[in-house]
Amino acid sequence: MAHDTARFTRITPPGEDRERLTCGDCGYIAYENPKIVVGSVVGVEGKVLLCRRAIEPRRGFWTIPAGYMELGETVEEGARREAQEEACADLRLDGVLAVYSIARIGQVQILFRAALASPGFAAGPESLEVRLFAWDEIPWAELAFPSVHWVLRAWREAGDGPLGAPRGNPPEDRRGITPLAEAAL
Amino acid sequence: MAHDTARFTRITPPGEDRERLTCGDCGYIAYENPKIVVGSVVGVEGKVLLCRRAIEPRRGFWTIPAGYMELGETVEEGARREAQEEACADLRLDGVLAVYSIARIGQVQILFRAALASPGFAAGPESLEVRLFAWDEIPWAELAFPSVHWVLRAWREAGDGPLGAPRGNPPEDRRGITPLAEAAL
Repeated sequence: MAHDTARFTRITPPGEDRERLTCGDCGYIAYENPKIVVGSVVGVEGKVLLCRRAIEPRRGFWTIPAGYMELGETVEEGARREAQEEACADLRLDGVLAVYSIARIGQVQILFRAALASPGFAAGPESLEVRLFAWDEIPWAELAFPSVHWVLRAWREAGDGPLGAPRGNPPEDRRGITPLAEAAL
Repeated sequence: MAHDTARFTRITPPGEDRERLTCGDCGYIAYENPKIVVGSVVGVEGKVLLCRRAIEPRRGFWTIPAGYMELGETVEEGARREAQEEACADLRLDGVLAVYSIARIGQVQILFRAALASPGFAAGPESLEVRLFAWDEIPWAELAFPSVHWVLRAWREAGDGPLGAPRGNPPEDRRGITPLAEAAL
């Protein structure tokens, strides 16, 4: 990105406690922040809706309908838009099932439990195919990302019951949280 | 931001479905995404910890410890860092109490229920003072932001019990979600 490095350098500007991408001409700070991915686990009569990715990364692998949140929308609107785009599916969102931090790549995933608000789905332009899987049919070895594993397990554990507090990263990938229930052990 | 407008324009680049800030020289797209605020409602023996802001916007008004999430941290680490910075408080996070979208300003707030992991707190550099308020003492007219009202009500409703699915925006400011419980009404 020649147009960035030409003018911006990483310095600690006055009043800041860490290095920021700062314009050498005018001092403008280009704050860099984590990006939000919004998505949904869509349950249909006990099966789960998955999309086979038509785009990189992980083309050909299966994932839940999810993608980057846009400016001007709510997290709920974003999750519904992604399902429309990737699976031509009209969702009714139930609640937040999981909030995952992928700190290494500056990403936060806010993932809902959802149902179809109206019947029908189909592959959108970013999907090769969209289909429903019973739990025992899920292609675990062909899932696109670790967090797809995580959230499918969370969805299974939640069953049809009321949602509790959203799941965070699983124990093998967790930093910074100690649920009271665990702290008491 | 002269350095941006000099080279970047808002066009719909090939393969995109909306206008993006795009470099006229090289076609690089500067994606603009919502920013994440992480914060906590800290309960101490039934009282809630609030900070009086020493900085704009809303200097002199009360808020929960919260701020922009940084790259390289998890949401939980961010929430604990903000409490350390603003209230010199060491938190134990319990779970996500609320996820709010302030679409108008491109902001998503992920707010935890928390307790003090070790005793003590004090005003950090961004706070004029930090103190505990019983529910009846909360200075409602001097709260910094609407979402502080929302999350304090959510915290009160949750009581000491297990957290349910996180609250979203309140009905008067809600877009895009229909909890199953409401859909069934």
